[in-house]
Amino acid sequence: METTCALSAGLVFGSLAHASTKVPEKWDETCSLLIIGTGFAGLGAALESHYLGMKDILVVDKMPSAGGNSIINGGAIAAAGTDMQEKAGIKDNADLLYSDILKAGGGLAHKELARRIADESVSNYKWLRDEVGVKFKAVTYHGGHSVPRSHAVMENSGAGFINPMLAKCKEFGIKIQLRTIVDDLIVNDKGCVVGVKARINHRFNRPDSGRVVYIRATKGVLIASGGFSQNVKMRTSHDPRLTDAFGSTNHPGATGEMIQEAQALGANTIHMDWIQLGPWTSPDENGFGLAPLAVESMVGYGPMINPTTSKRFIKETGNRKVRADAIVALGKPAIIYTCEANMMNKVVGKNMKPEQFETALKNGVIRKFDDLKSLADFYKLDYSTLEKENEKFNGYMKAMKDPEFDCMFFKDAVLNTKGPFYAIRLWPRVHHTMGGLEINEKAQVLDVKGNPIAGLYAAGEATGGVHGMVRLGTVAVADCIIFGRIAARTANGWAGC
Amino acid sequence: METTCALSAGLVFGSLAHASTKVPEKWDETCSLLIIGTGFAGLGAALESHYLGMKDILVVDKMPSAGGNSIINGGAIAAAGTDMQEKAGIKDNADLLYSDILKAGGGLAHKELARRIADESVSNYKWLRDEVGVKFKAVTYHGGHSVPRSHAVMENSGAGFINPMLAKCKEFGIKIQLRTIVDDLIVNDKGCVVGVKARINHRFNRPDSGRVVYIRATKGVLIASGGFSQNVKMRTSHDPRLTDAFGSTNHPGATGEMIQEAQALGANTIHMDWIQLGPWTSPDENGFGLAPLAVESMVGYGPMINPTTSKRFIKETGNRKVRADAIVALGKPAIIYTCEANMMNKVVGKNMKPEQFETALKNGVIRKFDDLKSLADFYKLDYSTLEKENEKFNGYMKAMKDPEFDCMFFKDAVLNTKGPFYAIRLWPRVHHTMGGLEINEKAQVLDVKGNPIAGLYAAGEATGGVHGMVRLGTVAVADCIIFGRIAARTANGWAGC
Repeated sequence: METTCALSAGLVFGSLAHASTKVPEKWDETCSLLIIGTGFAGLGAALESHYLGMKDILVVDKMPSAGGNSIINGGAIAAAGTDMQEKAGIKDNADLLYSDILKAGGGLAHKELARRIADESVSNYKWLRDEVGVKFKAVTYHGGHSVPRSHAVMENSGAGFINPMLAKCKEFGIKIQLRTIVDDLIVNDKGCVVGVKARINHRFNRPDSGRVVYIRATKGVLIASGGFSQNVKMRTSHDPRLTDAFGSTNHPGATGEMIQEAQALGANTIHMDWIQLGPWTSPDENGFGLAPLAVESMVGYGPMINPTTSKRFIKETGNRKVRADAIVALGKPAIIYTCEANMMNKVVGKNMKPEQFETALKNGVIRKFDDLKSLADFYKLDYSTLEKENEKFNGYMKAMKDPEFDCMFFKDAVLNTKGPFYAIRLWPRVHHTMGGLEINEKAQVLDVKGNPIAGLYAAGEATGGVHGMVRLGTVAVADCIIFGRIAARTANGWAGC
Repeated sequence: METTCALSAGLVFGSLAHASTKVPEKWDETCSLLIIGTGFAGLGAALESHYLGMKDILVVDKMPSAGGNSIINGGAIAAAGTDMQEKAGIKDNADLLYSDILKAGGGLAHKELARRIADESVSNYKWLRDEVGVKFKAVTYHGGHSVPRSHAVMENSGAGFINPMLAKCKEFGIKIQLRTIVDDLIVNDKGCVVGVKARINHRFNRPDSGRVVYIRATKGVLIASGGFSQNVKMRTSHDPRLTDAFGSTNHPGATGEMIQEAQALGANTIHMDWIQLGPWTSPDENGFGLAPLAVESMVGYGPMINPTTSKRFIKETGNRKVRADAIVALGKPAIIYTCEANMMNKVVGKNMKPEQFETALKNGVIRKFDDLKSLADFYKLDYSTLEKENEKFNGYMKAMKDPEFDCMFFKDAVLNTKGPFYAIRLWPRVHHTMGGLEINEKAQVLDVKGNPIAGLYAAGEATGGVHGMVRLGTVAVADCIIFGRIAARTANGWAGC
């Protein structure tokens, strides 16, 4: 049977194979909790493990640099009921965040998972600020939320979380081993995940590269390796529309193979066909880019225009899916703009650093126009139509009510009556895979029958069910860190086997 | 490692275990193609296998009677471009069916699978009529289709397909073994599925009952065991809304365990969260019931009313999801009605047998009212509002155009000007699981990496991707039989290993 398992591996089941990798005679290395991934979830788990008193934690990442996709994230985390919100006069609480998550989730979110995020969002924010040393700057608003609750960091990027987390890992002597790709999860004779078969000195652009090592993990293995936005084959099997004609905002390593490894062990996946397009990326730059930093603070401060009709077409503050689907349906990039006052008050120096703003202007990602006429002319819009739309929108802003598309408005908004105006073109990119491994509220991976797989945990974008159909901006950062920390607690409490 | 596999089985991976069931020293029985399930897909495969000259085909079913969920199906199959349609003056073709499937699928349907159904629908209809002896009666219309193309059988039920198929199996000496449940798929040392571990003399209401037997399958195993509408745990992990508060139209055996067995081998599942609610079931009866037989022929012939507003609320001829979601959103059962002329011309003696109509009237599933006033009074509707809605609807019927909800109309419809009227209350039930095992156009099951699993096929509701988000009425019958037959061809062409 040993041969059986081994052989069946290679020949047909690229995946089944892994379920059959036998416990080696000799392990090359032994750690307590093995964490796969150096993003929010992985580093959150690593630090929590340390605070819990665990030793010999090992964090591995297949990429040559740490931070995964998190380090290029927008740089804000959802928290409901913080001191920063209170200072800004924002009333918020866990129940409101919970209901916003469920509403965006369209009924698919697993309530017990959403509840954990809502309940731990404030303590998690404090932990990041007081224990990890994350520097928060401002509370910003993201589409789909009932109130502004996205806590932006000084750096205006995920690096504002990742760098302090990495610094703490270094301070605590937590071993982070890059260019180490996990090929198989190893199951012992009691059916527990006890380690992995991996390759060290791996090069991402050379799939077969690296030297095989067997790493034992006495406290189990945490899959914190992110989603599969960059795996075109995987994403098109779940959503045939998302061919390579669509770009992705993600780092190249977001290829989802650890989800597949776990599936090969009999792990269940859910909501895999809910793949989120970012509605705020610009066709005038690549990857995640700078546009999103500005756009999420522009919604509600200026209209979003259909280039064909020169009219508004969607609730600017609607959730990501609503906006992305609407823009894709237009067939060409939409245009959002606002006046200089709003740009300077709400974007520059807030979610977007002045130097990032300058770069965006220089690269034509953000364009400045002296007046509405020149904006209309540049984008080939019908000026008189646009002018009417602009006046209508100003009226709605003033009344704080939009009878047409129910856009949300903010007290500090300045009416778009006079230039200069700043405009951005919008075309969606594959941004986040909502689905993934099914977990319980202890971050244990569940098999196809709903039973926890001993010694196997998952957190962050590699999991499904936390958000349901649609993920609200900055909630995933909370998801990753909170469930990464939960996984550490579960592993710490596991006797092993 | 043998012990490893065996042990790991019981302890944690209820599922992983099965991937590890070793090839037995001695098989209790050997067949060519082992078919799991006696519904449309299973019997279609069995008959096709026979016509291809295969011997020793074995069909097993865990239930005490044959026909699975298919035998209680509505009794009509989609085909585009048949002689019956031509006689009825209906212009139709494969491309139109294909585009209807893709449209309802909302972009998620796997085009190569939908194409096979569209291309083979007519030849499949002829095969059923000429080879199998299915008796077709009328071409009916189902919501979401561009034209009437649902070919109803004399029996007005799936039995009209299943019984002649069973008779042919008997005539050909194809062995059908009931009360035989498959527990494990067995993989040989080359990674091919070569048989199963099953239990004979199983009793569905006694999960552990039956005697274990090992059945060898030299041509592989076909999973034709249907969906998981009756598995509340499984459906709520993919859609938490569908708790046991929702009934199901399916037979009790629709519990999806063979999908899980295949997952445990590393098979991929797709679209599992697209679970279809039947919009045409009545709260005044259980299961699938009689209401659907009438309702699908009433849409377009009378308005569907919101009991709270006494007004129309949805496109009556819209697809199943649109209608079901709209009714669920009402929070209470909707009402559809039409006048006697339409009832007698389009329903009674067509999709619904006279005796079924009598039964429905006797049980209060269909209610007869002399005039609109008494209908309004019985359902506590506001009569004057209903009267206006009725007049408006008559106007749309006459104009063959509905500016409000874009309902589709038919030339032979009689205006609902005078009673008696026949009405039905509507409340959805879990009807079909769109998702399932990912297959290629040869009906081979694909693993998580997209590679075919040698010797493992799947067809019908156990598979995903054929329909995408929404399944159009009677297309699944074509899906089951066409892909069951395709699986037989693939198995026949497989040398085994």
